[in-house]
Amino acid sequence: MKSIVVFSGSAHPQLADDICDHLGIDRSPAKISRFSNDCLQAQLLTNCRQRDVYIVQPLVPPTQEHLMELLLMIDAARGASAGQITAVMPHYAYARSDKKDAARISLGGRLVADLLSTAGVDRVLTMALHAPQVHGFFSVPVDHLTALGVLAEHFRQRDLRNTVIVSPDLGNAKQATLLARKLGLPVAAGSKQRLADDRVVIESIVGDVAGKRAIVLDDEIATGGSIVEIVNRLGDFGCEEISVACTHGLFAGNAVEKLTSHARISEVVTTDTVPTPQDFPGLTTLSVARLFAQAIGRIHRGRSVSRLFNDVDPSYARPEAEGLF
Amino acid sequence: MKSIVVFSGSAHPQLADDICDHLGIDRSPAKISRFSNDCLQAQLLTNCRQRDVYIVQPLVPPTQEHLMELLLMIDAARGASAGQITAVMPHYAYARSDKKDAARISLGGRLVADLLSTAGVDRVLTMALHAPQVHGFFSVPVDHLTALGVLAEHFRQRDLRNTVIVSPDLGNAKQATLLARKLGLPVAAGSKQRLADDRVVIESIVGDVAGKRAIVLDDEIATGGSIVEIVNRLGDFGCEEISVACTHGLFAGNAVEKLTSHARISEVVTTDTVPTPQDFPGLTTLSVARLFAQAIGRIHRGRSVSRLFNDVDPSYARPEAEGLF
Amino acid sequence: MKSIVVFSGSAHPQLADDICDHLGIDRSPAKISRFSNDCLQAQLLTNCRQRDVYIVQPLVPPTQEHLMELLLMIDAARGASAGQITAVMPHYAYARSDKKDAARISLGGRLVADLLSTAGVDRVLTMALHAPQVHGFFSVPVDHLTALGVLAEHFRQRDLRNTVIVSPDLGNAKQATLLARKLGLPVAAGSKQRLADDRVVIESIVGDVAGKRAIVLDDEIATGGSIVEIVNRLGDFGCEEISVACTHGLFAGNAVEKLTSHARISEVVTTDTVPTPQDFPGLTTLSVARLFAQAIGRIHRGRSVSRLFNDVDPSYARPEAEGLF
Amino acid sequence: MKSIVVFSGSAHPQLADDICDHLGIDRSPAKISRFSNDCLQAQLLTNCRQRDVYIVQPLVPPTQEHLMELLLMIDAARGASAGQITAVMPHYAYARSDKKDAARISLGGRLVADLLSTAGVDRVLTMALHAPQVHGFFSVPVDHLTALGVLAEHFRQRDLRNTVIVSPDLGNAKQATLLARKLGLPVAAGSKQRLADDRVVIESIVGDVAGKRAIVLDDEIATGGSIVEIVNRLGDFGCEEISVACTHGLFAGNAVEKLTSHARISEVVTTDTVPTPQDFPGLTTLSVARLFAQAIGRIHRGRSVSRLFNDVDPSYARPEAEGLF
Amino acid sequence: MKSIVVFSGSAHPQLADDICDHLGIDRSPAKISRFSNDCLQAQLLTNCRQRDVYIVQPLVPPTQEHLMELLLMIDAARGASAGQITAVMPHYAYARSDKKDAARISLGGRLVADLLSTAGVDRVLTMALHAPQVHGFFSVPVDHLTALGVLAEHFRQRDLRNTVIVSPDLGNAKQATLLARKLGLPVAAGSKQRLADDRVVIESIVGDVAGKRAIVLDDEIATGGSIVEIVNRLGDFGCEEISVACTHGLFAGNAVEKLTSHARISEVVTTDTVPTPQDFPGLTTLSVARLFAQAIGRIHRGRSVSRLFNDVDPSYARPEAEGLF
Amino acid sequence: MKSIVVFSGSAHPQLADDICDHLGIDRSPAKISRFSNDCLQAQLLTNCRQRDVYIVQPLVPPTQEHLMELLLMIDAARGASAGQITAVMPHYAYARSDKKDAARISLGGRLVADLLSTAGVDRVLTMALHAPQVHGFFSVPVDHLTALGVLAEHFRQRDLRNTVIVSPDLGNAKQATLLARKLGLPVAAGSKQRLADDRVVIESIVGDVAGKRAIVLDDEIATGGSIVEIVNRLGDFGCEEISVACTHGLFAGNAVEKLTSHARISEVVTTDTVPTPQDFPGLTTLSVARLFAQAIGRIHRGRSVSRLFNDVDPSYARPEAEGLF
Repeated sequence: MKSIVVFSGSAHPQLADDICDHLGIDRSPAKISRFSNDCLQAQLLTNCRQRDVYIVQPLVPPTQEHLMELLLMIDAARGASAGQITAVMPHYAYARSDKKDAARISLGGRLVADLLSTAGVDRVLTMALHAPQVHGFFSVPVDHLTALGVLAEHFRQRDLRNTVIVSPDLGNAKQATLLARKLGLPVAAGSKQRLADDRVVIESIVGDVAGKRAIVLDDEIATGGSIVEIVNRLGDFGCEEISVACTHGLFAGNAVEKLTSHARISEVVTTDTVPTPQDFPGLTTLSVARLFAQAIGRIHRGRSVSRLFNDVDPSYARPEAEGLF
Repeated sequence: MKSIVVFSGSAHPQLADDICDHLGIDRSPAKISRFSNDCLQAQLLTNCRQRDVYIVQPLVPPTQEHLMELLLMIDAARGASAGQITAVMPHYAYARSDKKDAARISLGGRLVADLLSTAGVDRVLTMALHAPQVHGFFSVPVDHLTALGVLAEHFRQRDLRNTVIVSPDLGNAKQATLLARKLGLPVAAGSKQRLADDRVVIESIVGDVAGKRAIVLDDEIATGGSIVEIVNRLGDFGCEEISVACTHGLFAGNAVEKLTSHARISEVVTTDTVPTPQDFPGLTTLSVARLFAQAIGRIHRGRSVSRLFNDVDPSYARPEAEGLF
Repeated sequence: MKSIVVFSGSAHPQLADDICDHLGIDRSPAKISRFSNDCLQAQLLTNCRQRDVYIVQPLVPPTQEHLMELLLMIDAARGASAGQITAVMPHYAYARSDKKDAARISLGGRLVADLLSTAGVDRVLTMALHAPQVHGFFSVPVDHLTALGVLAEHFRQRDLRNTVIVSPDLGNAKQATLLARKLGLPVAAGSKQRLADDRVVIESIVGDVAGKRAIVLDDEIATGGSIVEIVNRLGDFGCEEISVACTHGLFAGNAVEKLTSHARISEVVTTDTVPTPQDFPGLTTLSVARLFAQAIGRIHRGRSVSRLFNDVDPSYARPEAEGLF
Repeated sequence: MKSIVVFSGSAHPQLADDICDHLGIDRSPAKISRFSNDCLQAQLLTNCRQRDVYIVQPLVPPTQEHLMELLLMIDAARGASAGQITAVMPHYAYARSDKKDAARISLGGRLVADLLSTAGVDRVLTMALHAPQVHGFFSVPVDHLTALGVLAEHFRQRDLRNTVIVSPDLGNAKQATLLARKLGLPVAAGSKQRLADDRVVIESIVGDVAGKRAIVLDDEIATGGSIVEIVNRLGDFGCEEISVACTHGLFAGNAVEKLTSHARISEVVTTDTVPTPQDFPGLTTLSVARLFAQAIGRIHRGRSVSRLFNDVDPSYARPEAEGLF
Repeated sequence: MKSIVVFSGSAHPQLADDICDHLGIDRSPAKISRFSNDCLQAQLLTNCRQRDVYIVQPLVPPTQEHLMELLLMIDAARGASAGQITAVMPHYAYARSDKKDAARISLGGRLVADLLSTAGVDRVLTMALHAPQVHGFFSVPVDHLTALGVLAEHFRQRDLRNTVIVSPDLGNAKQATLLARKLGLPVAAGSKQRLADDRVVIESIVGDVAGKRAIVLDDEIATGGSIVEIVNRLGDFGCEEISVACTHGLFAGNAVEKLTSHARISEVVTTDTVPTPQDFPGLTTLSVARLFAQAIGRIHRGRSVSRLFNDVDPSYARPEAEGLF
Repeated sequence: MKSIVVFSGSAHPQLADDICDHLGIDRSPAKISRFSNDCLQAQLLTNCRQRDVYIVQPLVPPTQEHLMELLLMIDAARGASAGQITAVMPHYAYARSDKKDAARISLGGRLVADLLSTAGVDRVLTMALHAPQVHGFFSVPVDHLTALGVLAEHFRQRDLRNTVIVSPDLGNAKQATLLARKLGLPVAAGSKQRLADDRVVIESIVGDVAGKRAIVLDDEIATGGSIVEIVNRLGDFGCEEISVACTHGLFAGNAVEKLTSHARISEVVTTDTVPTPQDFPGLTTLSVARLFAQAIGRIHRGRSVSRLFNDVDPSYARPEAEGLF
């Protein structure tokens, strides 16, 4: 395998540049054109033959445009005889569509994984999938990073006395549990009630939160609706100071206004897996660029990526420690 | 498509017979042979050409033997020009292996789904997958039934005052939530703590259980270890009368002894997705044969299977109600 | 195969309705939802099991949204055990990207054909592909209709004396030649010259056009740029009265203004493969809904589709004539 | 990737040897056997394991024999664990079958591309495909060379005053246009008329040719029928001195006699993509062996192949120039 | 599935007609064209849509031509939306290439099976594969007929006293053993010795043949070389009257002369899986057309094909007898 | 390709260790876990990224367990981005299921080959397949070793006067013929008669064995039934001293007792492709570990494996001798 080549679609060139900085290389130019009939076309402006190609593109809005860009860039790299093509999707948004909870419904999380294979991807590098099972939707190897280490490091510098980690959804509380364990804190979760097809409310809080400080953790914040709801519910129990944390901070619609204007929310913490909103005063953005650069470097040199989890989930990387290399 | 043909592997012929009874047909004979070198061979003893073939085989211990039987029977049906082959797996045990929670670990849930496709299956009919995302591991259509309706019907005949539905695992509490909603009861969950690679304890109970009657719900009970643990923990909170319910009652190892000898367990309820243990006094086994027969009948006649969920999760089957057929 | 079910994405429901009218059936409802993170989800609201499903969706702007809708609807139909899924794409816009005319460029026409297969399509019904070779990009059967019959019928009612059919591009003049043959007229073509990567001008007219009336024929009109250019060039040769005809009338950007304000353009004729622009006075829109309905009816009943070409290209359908059915 | 190994089928060993000469290596021996029942068998007589294998075989008559040889050699190389297998097909004759212009007709260009993939090819290196869209028939990367540079170089040494480039077919005039642009000459084209299923005549000439010298360019000359026809038609317009040029000079049937005996044909120019006919006095054969050797060398060393087009179509290779490598 | 359509390539139209006679239908016309560059093209002249299509084409010399014809006809049928495509190959000649007995050798038997799948075949109907394992080379269902019943019926009318069935090859004596069992006769076999790469001699006879009448059975006779050799060897042991029998009588090269001029050969018996040589006086040709017609009829109507073996190998069809249909 | 990594499943770690000894490396650890529901899980405890991974696992009883282990280990290696995965199956037991000799029967030999591909294997290294055609069941490259060289070397040290090589089965006598040729001895074979579905007897001996010493050769000995039968039959002909040899010595059931207690059997010779039975006094076990290590070494370094056959079958490796490397 010859040298690394990193391209970026138009979704998040800043992150691609930051990753390249950590890798000590220049980002290679690509050109996305639009036919007058609105079809897209991708051209890679650097030789890919036998190269180890990485294409950085989180699936952020406009999601369909960015997905198609990614597919076309993969197709172009394959047609250009790339040695290996890795789709670097810091946010795999279609993971949200991960189960059939209604009749005759599409399963976008699996479909998009298959589309990427069809385009010719050889590997996927991603972070904080909505559910860990989504890993199994891909037929190519997936290196699945977590931002929990970065988030934990941030909160460790805070006063964590009398604090509880809260998951908005009882049915999806695994990440909150892991963060709680890392910080040595208890965990609680909201119990959702579906009122109608498209309206879900948090009915109650499972776990002891009364009078505590809370850190609400979700993988993705889009419109912020369910975050505000869990915060309100926590307020009912006397939680006054609430931090909100997530890996993928999309802050779509009027999320910024909702979150900044809420009296009980003292802090919002996210990462740069997706572009940071322009006008969000007080937002804390932690960078995962170094983590991605490390993963890419290890993939390229054939070293273990699970090593990166050593300080996040000690049980995770153990095999390596027992191994010979 | 010509007539239905139903075969059974050696995993659970009783269920296959019960399904056939509901369908009003005879089970077709098949012959599983073993070469002297321990390799298996399957022969279908009824013409399959252009037939709508169903092979009933839950993946129960010895799991590898039953899986290989199923693969060989599918292969034989395909080679015999079956019109359509449906694997009826009331218990898809490999769903337990649904995520990569350690480095370089196999993902059996996806692998076995792919093996079934390779053998030639056209559709899968299953029940109560360990996680709903496992649906997305299959590249063929899956009809995914639930036993919650049958279980709810059972408990509705009990006195449900002062009762709470308890999930042993906070990270997997969706089914408990659904059952609670159907019965109009609150929900609680155990919060697990991993002590070592292979030892997990339930650290605390999230939710209010003090002094209540509890129905502990899990999708599968194998050795019963985590059930006993959550029951003990509930006992610490003063729960005296505890019902245990699951869809897949394997009761492996000394599970029967553990469960029957426990003072606080007043009832164990399961279904016949897997063979019932020979010697389990007081076990309540609810049959899902009629549900599977209905699903097979609807699949064969091209009618909607989601209709079956009408009385289980009202939102699920709504599209049909709005549809034209 | 059971009854026909016709769905429409959001690209062109009017055409789907018109096709259904000709077929004498109701269009079946589908629901396209958008997650708050901009991911799409499709739900089909009518039972598809064993049905002969048709999904009408031309790839018109916003093209990526409509493509993804189509892929998700196909995925939903496959997961719902449709008997056969036909993508009815009256305009396959990605056919424009049909060759590698630069280094490391994507080949969208082939890629999208493969994506459709991955989603689970069984057949494609389309019209007027940009180049006939695009047919070979698909690995599923394609029924490829032409609007030339409809267009010819329209122009036959005009005075065609002293008229020439003009193709804007010498390298793609096959359709113009066919129309000319049907109307008994001569043909001419523009010879393009590429000035820069993204600027092409028509350098000269190949063929005799001096003082004639012209019918300029293109498969698709998007921004109308090259149409206006060939019209200007024809004006240099004394053509005063010029009709403009195309199958796919997108009229994007300021195409309507360009075309309506041009002194020499006496008429613009198109079909309804794509939605007609709201405000285009004097536009003649010929309907192809009946043609599509006939094709769907013939596909469904297992009759020859090539028969539809009998009055368009007599050599095309000849085999049928010699056949037995 | 270890060293290059070049094999030849029996179609054109001379070209394979010439390519090897340019590469400075020996051609590796292969043995094609014929069973007594006329089935073929291929054996590669040099170790292929992890090697970069190239198999040179233009699809020339007897085409089916040569195609099957090629498929069997690819199969043998794959079974022998070749690192990468490139089919070097200087003439991909099945490209002629690139569209469905009649009902229920085979699409050989796509089928053969798929057969090559099935046999195990990893890449195709070819020249002057009948239509550029045929590139998209392949699911493996294709490096598509052109002989236009070589042909242009030849004609640049002629007196080109008062000369026009003529394409025999208006519907396929792209190559003529490109050559005309390179030589700074105007272009014209024949307009064909199909009289019957298997008889096509050139009805008229589109473009100004009167009294000019003409260079007729086609991609392939087989029986020479349409060449003689366009030459005759040009003669009607007073063209006295006509050069005939093509990339693939098969000269099948009595083509040699037809072309050498024609009064107006002053020169026939072709390349060695296919074996040169034994007895064609005055034929000018330009060699493309060096071009293929360059492409193979660049593929092997992971360098850009599009660079080879720098002097042919300046816009083509531009990305490389802007790139970093 | 709609009605049967039977096409024939140019290999053996007589057999196709005989099969159609037994089926009581007309053979549907197809047209094989040859481009001037020797590429083939197939056109099916009868509507195939949703039809049950059978293409009759044994792989006889010129084998590559007939194979390519078959692949193109399958491709055309698939593109024409055939409901199901069965390749009827009474002689699958490439079965001869069934093992890797030299380094880096092609495995034609498997490759051609894969090519047929790539072209789109859904099923194969064949007879007397060179080795039974070749069945496993196909990924589609294979219905594998035998001519042993027809041959046995023929010999039962002879005086079989003091007769032995002789296989020319000890390593491939299964068919001889089966025929011997059916006729109640002993079996013997030649033991081959490979002298050089391409010269094999029969060194000795294994089994008692001295002074007996012999029936030499082989699956295929091409040049007849090994038949003459085993006959000569039998002559050394005093066998005076020798019958020669085979399923596939190609009689290539000077086989006819060799066999008719040999003093000890009293009779040559074959079937019509391949065209009968024009000038072979005394050849007995048994027809298998009825057997193929029965198989096609049973496939079409979804009835068991293994029933056809009832009178050939009693153990074979037993499952059916025990079945319900 | 980076360094070699060799894993072993639980089938035969001793052989894996012996192979590693010859390679001069340590075996890498792997962990096979069993869920409480009897599902298996594999974890590779050494980094595999870009490594050349070999997994040693003969398919010995419990065969289904070992097969599933192998599939899961391959899956884990693929998910861990192994550079290349070779399944080292010294005994591919499912090769026994290599033909359809009854209606609607599974074809395990082909199915398991396909399952291995689905799991992600890139190559198979095996020995002494039951029939050479089984090679063609795999769609990945197979390196197929033979133990005949090792066995011949053993017997060359014996007194071979008046000795005959005997195959138990006339229909499968190829290996016996090869061994006979290597040792310069004559060959004989048993002729089997099938009495019932599951009872086969050896009816007679074809070839001259009277009063000779015999070496009975089979590829696999499981229960030893057919070996004892051929030995008894040889005894009827006065063979007093009989050696029994095989590649795969499973010795299942009471095979050890049967073979050790038989008066005429003077010696049993096998290899270590499968674990040697604990209590088999007098068994001669020849090691093939060195042969496998050589093959692995050659595969890894890209050298010819067929070279290993130089001293086994001189014709086999000849191409290499003529080659250039």
